[in-house]
Amino acid sequence: MNIQQYMEQLGQQARRASRVIANAPTSKKNAVLEAIARALDAQKSQLLKANGEDMTQGKRDGLDDALLDRLELNDARIAAMADGLRQIAALPDPVGEISHLNTRPSGIRVGKMRVPLGVVGIIYEARPNVTADAAGLCLKSGNATILRGGSEAIRSNRAIAACIHDALQAESLPREVVQVIDTTDRAAVVQLVKLKEYVDVIVPRGGKSLIAMISEEARVPVIKHLHGVCHVYIDDKADFDKAVAIAMNAKTQRYGTCNTMETLLVASAIADKILAKLGPMYQEKGVELRGCARTRERLPHIKAATEEDWSTEYLAPILSVRVVDDVTAAIDHIQTYGSAHTDAIVTEDYSRAMKFLREVDSSSVMVNASTRFADGYEYGLGAEIGISTDKIHARGPVGLEGLTSQKFVVLGEGHVRR
Amino acid sequence: MNIQQYMEQLGQQARRASRVIANAPTSKKNAVLEAIARALDAQKSQLLKANGEDMTQGKRDGLDDALLDRLELNDARIAAMADGLRQIAALPDPVGEISHLNTRPSGIRVGKMRVPLGVVGIIYEARPNVTADAAGLCLKSGNATILRGGSEAIRSNRAIAACIHDALQAESLPREVVQVIDTTDRAAVVQLVKLKEYVDVIVPRGGKSLIAMISEEARVPVIKHLHGVCHVYIDDKADFDKAVAIAMNAKTQRYGTCNTMETLLVASAIADKILAKLGPMYQEKGVELRGCARTRERLPHIKAATEEDWSTEYLAPILSVRVVDDVTAAIDHIQTYGSAHTDAIVTEDYSRAMKFLREVDSSSVMVNASTRFADGYEYGLGAEIGISTDKIHARGPVGLEGLTSQKFVVLGEGHVRR
Repeated sequence: MNIQQYMEQLGQQARRASRVIANAPTSKKNAVLEAIARALDAQKSQLLKANGEDMTQGKRDGLDDALLDRLELNDARIAAMADGLRQIAALPDPVGEISHLNTRPSGIRVGKMRVPLGVVGIIYEARPNVTADAAGLCLKSGNATILRGGSEAIRSNRAIAACIHDALQAESLPREVVQVIDTTDRAAVVQLVKLKEYVDVIVPRGGKSLIAMISEEARVPVIKHLHGVCHVYIDDKADFDKAVAIAMNAKTQRYGTCNTMETLLVASAIADKILAKLGPMYQEKGVELRGCARTRERLPHIKAATEEDWSTEYLAPILSVRVVDDVTAAIDHIQTYGSAHTDAIVTEDYSRAMKFLREVDSSSVMVNASTRFADGYEYGLGAEIGISTDKIHARGPVGLEGLTSQKFVVLGEGHVRR
Repeated sequence: MNIQQYMEQLGQQARRASRVIANAPTSKKNAVLEAIARALDAQKSQLLKANGEDMTQGKRDGLDDALLDRLELNDARIAAMADGLRQIAALPDPVGEISHLNTRPSGIRVGKMRVPLGVVGIIYEARPNVTADAAGLCLKSGNATILRGGSEAIRSNRAIAACIHDALQAESLPREVVQVIDTTDRAAVVQLVKLKEYVDVIVPRGGKSLIAMISEEARVPVIKHLHGVCHVYIDDKADFDKAVAIAMNAKTQRYGTCNTMETLLVASAIADKILAKLGPMYQEKGVELRGCARTRERLPHIKAATEEDWSTEYLAPILSVRVVDDVTAAIDHIQTYGSAHTDAIVTEDYSRAMKFLREVDSSSVMVNASTRFADGYEYGLGAEIGISTDKIHARGPVGLEGLTSQKFVVLGEGHVRR
């Protein structure tokens, strides 16, 4: 069987299994999630052994330390995986919810029923915990899943898949509800994203190059997570203490996350005071600043920002800083250089806050809060499958609801159209 | 300027204009819609003249009568176009609505704000009224539009576009809010669906071959409207009179619409009685029946249905009829042969009604109502831009809401993440 036939087979099996899981009662889905959690705990030694082999191979292949760290499983991480599944079990089931049911002049009642998407393909790298997370979210939302992890984690992912399959079988559900692609051949990814007939949506979780490749090849809709070039704009009507706290938190609470601020915009009328305060604070934290000319008038020791800096996601202790005239100039900068991920304004001025909320076209827009809040848990969605910077279907953190669709339901009493 | 440059330019202009219309107040958008309606009335003679030229050319090119009928404008059709725009003006503005605003344990308030998609590309054939309809719906939902009508209607579409541009200018809005592609070159369509940077979604309104071509070429997300192979299943627990009324209405109220029933499924326990009644009624209406073996035992004079019949959208007075064992067999038939458009059950049995509602994976699922109700007006959405048979983003009739997206908004009081 070649790769194309293998992927077609996975697709057909997933489609069949999706019909079963779509109609499984909530209690059964939760029982599977609990059973996977128990299996992960029970089969810890097998998981650690398989992961040890991936780690040995990874070191031999010269993977860098950051990647090896993401690849590694240990007691705490296995416990966290199991706990994540129990949390998903505790979330309300989105499937079957009927909303907006109302009676039309014709007499029919029309509403919307939330239903699973069908088959979800997830493509990710390194972290084996995504295998359990993604499978859990898709299962709870009534979808079948085809998972494609990184080749460096294939032994760990197989071991996790074994736990999932044991749990599915224990609850008399087909094991094809969750399938892990069992080849490291990259051609499998290219095939997966073209399986229009069998796959309803692709969620890639990975670097820019992975996502660019998938966007180019895909014939299946993709929920894209592009990079996060997030901004905080400190307005001249900002509360000084809130501004300082938010600007520090948004940059320094964690450097490597997509909702970390990468560019600070400061209104010129407040720039002297704000930069005199923040400059030394960032320096103390070891954050390298790169400024525009007007920033460097106030902080002459810092590097000049280049045009490229404004659109760079550093994911590191580096921050570009620009002094702008007002909220309009700040919005212009964000629309020009931002990535439509998360942007915040700090101001006490009502009209400017409303203008910013309305006009900034990003997946999360904030007033007087740190960009670091842009996250499924913080928003109350529970776990997230990713953060969408697209506008179609799902935008921002994508939880269980983003893995569903709504169909119209019509309830009549023998009604016909005149 | 070649086609590629021309389309890039349209795209850039649309993107710029989209920022203006996205933030236009409701009153201004409604004023434009009213002004377009007035202009269509005032410039009726120019519209009729341009359309007359299209008609003359169409006859010269040998267009068939059905196409010529769809192409033709007359007093009544121009008045209907203007009226449609006034109805869109009267609909509530979806933009800016904030929903689900709640306070999180961290203290931030999180909600969702409805916002325009940005730039919508519409590709359609023949009917020039789509130019006004689609422009109106996109404008009301705060989107810029790039319209590509059929080459046979180009003079009519230009004349309608002139009315739209006059109205936009009268309200000091950029005319690029609505652009009509002014070339009949098919390469323009291929370019349009690849303009990822400038176009947020494509809505094709046309035949299967147009949509297949677009799905293949598109790099921009597409809201697809595939064909409608709609079913009515008459359960053995159906009320006889409701069943007869719905089966007749779903087939014969109009033949050429996508929500018309194409296959009737009848439970075997009620088949004798139902077919004895419906057979002669369809015959009287001139509907050709094509039946399975069990149907032909009851109606021996009708043609045998082939395997192909079960998946055919006739759009004509032809109906395939199948006798099935029960509701499970009916759902199996629908999942195998249907097009996930609209399907209905007629039954008085609660559990079977619920099972059908839950398990039939179509954009509209109905109990005891005619499939002919699957329509934006009947559902209370106002005008529709199309009916989506996709599951991603929008499903079923797509009105103003389907032309918007929701971003997260976060309201804090200086909150930072711990």
